[in-house]
Amino acid sequence: MCVIRRRFGENLRAIRKARGFSQEHLAHAAGIDRSYLGKVERGEVNLTIEKLYLLSKAIRCSPKDLIPEI
Amino acid sequence: MCVIRRRFGENLRAIRKARGFSQEHLAHAAGIDRSYLGKVERGEVNLTIEKLYLLSKAIRCSPKDLIPEI
Repeated sequence: MCVIRRRFGENLRAIRKARGFSQEHLAHAAGIDRSYLGKVERGEVNLTIEKLYLLSKAIRCSPKDLIPEI
Repeated sequence: MCVIRRRFGENLRAIRKARGFSQEHLAHAAGIDRSYLGKVERGEVNLTIEKLYLLSKAIRCSPKDLIPEI
């Protein structure tokens, strides 16, 4: 699996949990499907920058915060 | 046009020029087509995070630097 996708997913999950959001809550806030969010967090999705901003807005962090250094 | 794509393209172009890279130079370093890079800089591409890391590596900056605050 691509390390970029995996690390991004792990980073998103950590920030989501730190915010106390369930996957359902974040998926609803971002207007995306919960199963899609699950795939993103498992590193199965090569996310686009528009989805990056959508998620960062929903999770109330800077889009930069979702981008792990690799 | 999507403000995220436009601002990302503007940001990439500014960093590329600050590094003294031509589009040809950066496209070659990143292993992507020059015309594709031109589209990204004009805000016509909803880039993926893998391409984000590819470009940041080629331009020798953090991927976070390519992500504008909007």
